[in-house]
Amino acid sequence: MTHPLFTKHEATLDKALAAIETRGYWSPFAETPSPKVYGETANADGEAAFKAHFGKIFELDQPSTSETVGKERSPFGIALDIRYPKAEPDALVRAAADAQSGWRAAGPQAWVGVSLEILSRLNRASFEIAYSVMHTTGQAFMMAFQAGGPHAQDRALEAVVYAWDQLRRIPAEAHWEKPQGKNPPLAMQKRFSIVPRGTGLVLGCCTFPTWNGYPGMFADLATGNAVIVKPHPGAILPLAVTVRIAREVLREAGFDPNVVTLLATEPNDGALVQDLAVRPEIKLIDFTGSTQNGTWLERNAHQAQVYTEKAGVNQIVIDSVDDMKAAARNIAFSLALYSGQMCTAPQNIYVPRDGIRTAEGHLSFDDVAKSIAGAVQKLASDPARAVELTGAIQNDGVANRVDEARTLGEILLDSQSLAHPAFPDARVLTPLVLKLDARTDEAKFTKEWFGPISFVVATDSTAQSLDLAGSIARTHGALTLSIYSTDDKVIEAAHEAAIEGGVALSINLTGGVFVNQTAAFSDFHGTGANPAANAALSDAAFVANRFRVVQSRVHVAPMAVPAVAGQTA
Amino acid sequence: MTHPLFTKHEATLDKALAAIETRGYWSPFAETPSPKVYGETANADGEAAFKAHFGKIFELDQPSTSETVGKERSPFGIALDIRYPKAEPDALVRAAADAQSGWRAAGPQAWVGVSLEILSRLNRASFEIAYSVMHTTGQAFMMAFQAGGPHAQDRALEAVVYAWDQLRRIPAEAHWEKPQGKNPPLAMQKRFSIVPRGTGLVLGCCTFPTWNGYPGMFADLATGNAVIVKPHPGAILPLAVTVRIAREVLREAGFDPNVVTLLATEPNDGALVQDLAVRPEIKLIDFTGSTQNGTWLERNAHQAQVYTEKAGVNQIVIDSVDDMKAAARNIAFSLALYSGQMCTAPQNIYVPRDGIRTAEGHLSFDDVAKSIAGAVQKLASDPARAVELTGAIQNDGVANRVDEARTLGEILLDSQSLAHPAFPDARVLTPLVLKLDARTDEAKFTKEWFGPISFVVATDSTAQSLDLAGSIARTHGALTLSIYSTDDKVIEAAHEAAIEGGVALSINLTGGVFVNQTAAFSDFHGTGANPAANAALSDAAFVANRFRVVQSRVHVAPMAVPAVAGQTA
Repeated sequence: MTHPLFTKHEATLDKALAAIETRGYWSPFAETPSPKVYGETANADGEAAFKAHFGKIFELDQPSTSETVGKERSPFGIALDIRYPKAEPDALVRAAADAQSGWRAAGPQAWVGVSLEILSRLNRASFEIAYSVMHTTGQAFMMAFQAGGPHAQDRALEAVVYAWDQLRRIPAEAHWEKPQGKNPPLAMQKRFSIVPRGTGLVLGCCTFPTWNGYPGMFADLATGNAVIVKPHPGAILPLAVTVRIAREVLREAGFDPNVVTLLATEPNDGALVQDLAVRPEIKLIDFTGSTQNGTWLERNAHQAQVYTEKAGVNQIVIDSVDDMKAAARNIAFSLALYSGQMCTAPQNIYVPRDGIRTAEGHLSFDDVAKSIAGAVQKLASDPARAVELTGAIQNDGVANRVDEARTLGEILLDSQSLAHPAFPDARVLTPLVLKLDARTDEAKFTKEWFGPISFVVATDSTAQSLDLAGSIARTHGALTLSIYSTDDKVIEAAHEAAIEGGVALSINLTGGVFVNQTAAFSDFHGTGANPAANAALSDAAFVANRFRVVQSRVHVAPMAVPAVAGQTA
Repeated sequence: MTHPLFTKHEATLDKALAAIETRGYWSPFAETPSPKVYGETANADGEAAFKAHFGKIFELDQPSTSETVGKERSPFGIALDIRYPKAEPDALVRAAADAQSGWRAAGPQAWVGVSLEILSRLNRASFEIAYSVMHTTGQAFMMAFQAGGPHAQDRALEAVVYAWDQLRRIPAEAHWEKPQGKNPPLAMQKRFSIVPRGTGLVLGCCTFPTWNGYPGMFADLATGNAVIVKPHPGAILPLAVTVRIAREVLREAGFDPNVVTLLATEPNDGALVQDLAVRPEIKLIDFTGSTQNGTWLERNAHQAQVYTEKAGVNQIVIDSVDDMKAAARNIAFSLALYSGQMCTAPQNIYVPRDGIRTAEGHLSFDDVAKSIAGAVQKLASDPARAVELTGAIQNDGVANRVDEARTLGEILLDSQSLAHPAFPDARVLTPLVLKLDARTDEAKFTKEWFGPISFVVATDSTAQSLDLAGSIARTHGALTLSIYSTDDKVIEAAHEAAIEGGVALSINLTGGVFVNQTAAFSDFHGTGANPAANAALSDAAFVANRFRVVQSRVHVAPMAVPAVAGQTA
């Protein structure tokens, strides 16, 4: 009874199982937008598909009112004017429940097979999705392609394979036979049914709608749940395309497409989301966004398993370096990438006020701060190249935050607006770098300043830097921590601070790996051990509670002969 | 670096891993209190050890005030007068945190090895624990021995092996190497550290202190957490003996024994528990008890992973039988066992008002009701034998509930007080069986009447019986559901009702297996899919979120040679 889509993708699944066991490098989805991989016309076709949505009503044959919604704006300033069918949450909840019974009955191999087929189709749509991500989030094209396409697909597949790894451990049946001494054994046949929780709700964010939305969505699907996908009002299109493709695959495979539906909304949809999130039918919630909204869900949606990724304060500790320029280049790239609009972007950079050791001698605090600011300045100096790194600012809130941050301390490097060569109306900002002091400014740097805002913080010592790093991660949350040191003891102390803060540690990054990037199948994204996220992407805990097991047992004839009298106690 | 206690118990662990994979019969702990297994003097020694506690202060060298607490009363009426060292919750929390760092650093094999050694010592103490369970819970000796000793140890081992099964999937290290076309690959060495949540709190119940307390306690230990064990004020001794043994093993293995501490209290400790449960240091809570207290924890202890087992309404659906007498005998045993003071004991028995089919012809509703009441009456008729089945009533609340229930409907069989031949002051009650009607009495039978109280409920049809069973389980919670039918279609419908209600189903039990008994390694206890429990004993979800993974990564030299130019996309 193996499902044909399971058979079709079984080789990929087996490789993914091996990958999560060894956690070495592996990816089935090519990250380069190369014509050789994706086809000669893939880019042009994808762009055309993207542009075909402009000024139209997005077609989606799911329950809807006759009205439409949609107020997305491109951070690059082009007019989108895309409208989506409006749906009543109530109608989607009912449709999901109706669709769920047939989906549930299909069983684990069908759930996994269909999930993998959806991913394979999403991969083919990577260019359409890339342009959609670019013009809703403000990511530059290359990042929108990679993070929004293949890397998001990797994270989705990772969630699917973790789900399968747990599902396959539950035997469908068991023969149980308990010896009874000289009497015949007690024998029972048991049946174990995987019972999905019910309906999941995925609440997307406006910066990485697919990368952050897929893990929950695919973890739900692969464990037999129906899913209502509610994108952020500012980044609907990438998830709308995703839902359209998921529904196509479901329908082709003979399932009710309402296993996956889209709930498109307009800005200020908070009340609608809160009402939906506490409905008894919603059993799973995956959320990426503000601490305020995430905490509200954790504390109010008691009927659901709630997985959240919220705000955090990512930190870099500089103790000593071989090559300050290489370190500064790497840090500057991390600060400039997508203008710091990443949940993994560093914010606080701790440097001892007495300076640091380097291979070329002592550097003062100001030398280190200047080196970092200079490296950022260099990245920002050529607008045509800079915009391909920074992309555009997703929303006014980020831009306003940069203005607010300017008053926090001494400006080491001011944020500038750049003119985008291709998009004259794009809102582009380069990083703002400030100088703060651990003695006086803790209230300023213990909160998240989401966007292109960072602080070089003078500390009394590396020991204090590590203390701050561990305690701030533990108390305020963090997804990343970075240490620069040539001293093994300091690196071990950084390991301890990382454990204390429950945060992933990167050590001496000076090359082509950046602290804000994680690789699916190898790096866990988030730990679930500090306030920045209550779950990791992905691990067993992320999937194992999305389904339950219901068993039955009935007497059957024993298979063994009774023991001879006296043989057992 | 394999821990010697891991090596010592590795063969048992391997068998346990095989058992949870196949879910056939397996148990490493002999359930018969046989001198051949436990030693010729084990019973006498255990009883003597138990009696040696009378009128004494229980010795436990953990942080305590100079005061003592303890007001346990034996349901069999003997004087216990055992006092326990009083501990300030604050002092135990600090001691646990201090102990936890060394325990955490020891790593998974040490946690699992020490856990298994504790279990092996607990097994040897099974008689002392059995008498302790008997005289705090009111269980008859055989049940106290089996459920309180080897079966509880089985459930503990099951939690340990599930923990190990997840822990062993996280590699300690990984080499990650990403091809870069014609350039050298990016290569990183990654380290994955298992980070326990911190301190767990186990809140015991007064009916099955070890059976319900061990899974959480051992799941916490096996994943590297410290544990504060807070027994129910009415059943401290079994867990005090357990904690004493755990501390002995920890000390012998070179760990701070405060990894496990006891918080003994006196009745009405609700405020103390609530204050402790919301402390930031408490990261895990395992609770068995009332819906009111369990729900309070779920909704208020946001800083912790909360696992609860609460009230439920267990149900039997009678559709048709081959042999009514055999069915009635089995049901009667389940009603009488420990006077129904089991979270798995049946309460509502649905019978169509028009009667049922049997191999010997039609039986009216009243015939079926009489058959069940008669079988119970027969079990209760010989007090000397009956008390070995019913044990004694744990607390006045249960006895009062029986009085209250008498007014709910027509009495099919009244509850009687029995004189216990060995314990003249024992409080023994036989089952009360009432007749109710689904048309008029739903408000009465949709709540739990914990104790020797059951209802034979007249329904319009088996279809209505199954509807009630599924919806009551889903809405009010249930740990067990039982169906009697000779019709395969009805049994399939019962499977559907079980899935709807998220409850384990037993089919046509007429022999030596009873609906209120589950076998570790084969039967999941609870599903986590209805209000009776938010977790199952045991599965991956029960353990996977008791620890987190913190990783580090650092560049290393690549192992592979770069691909030739043009070979990669």
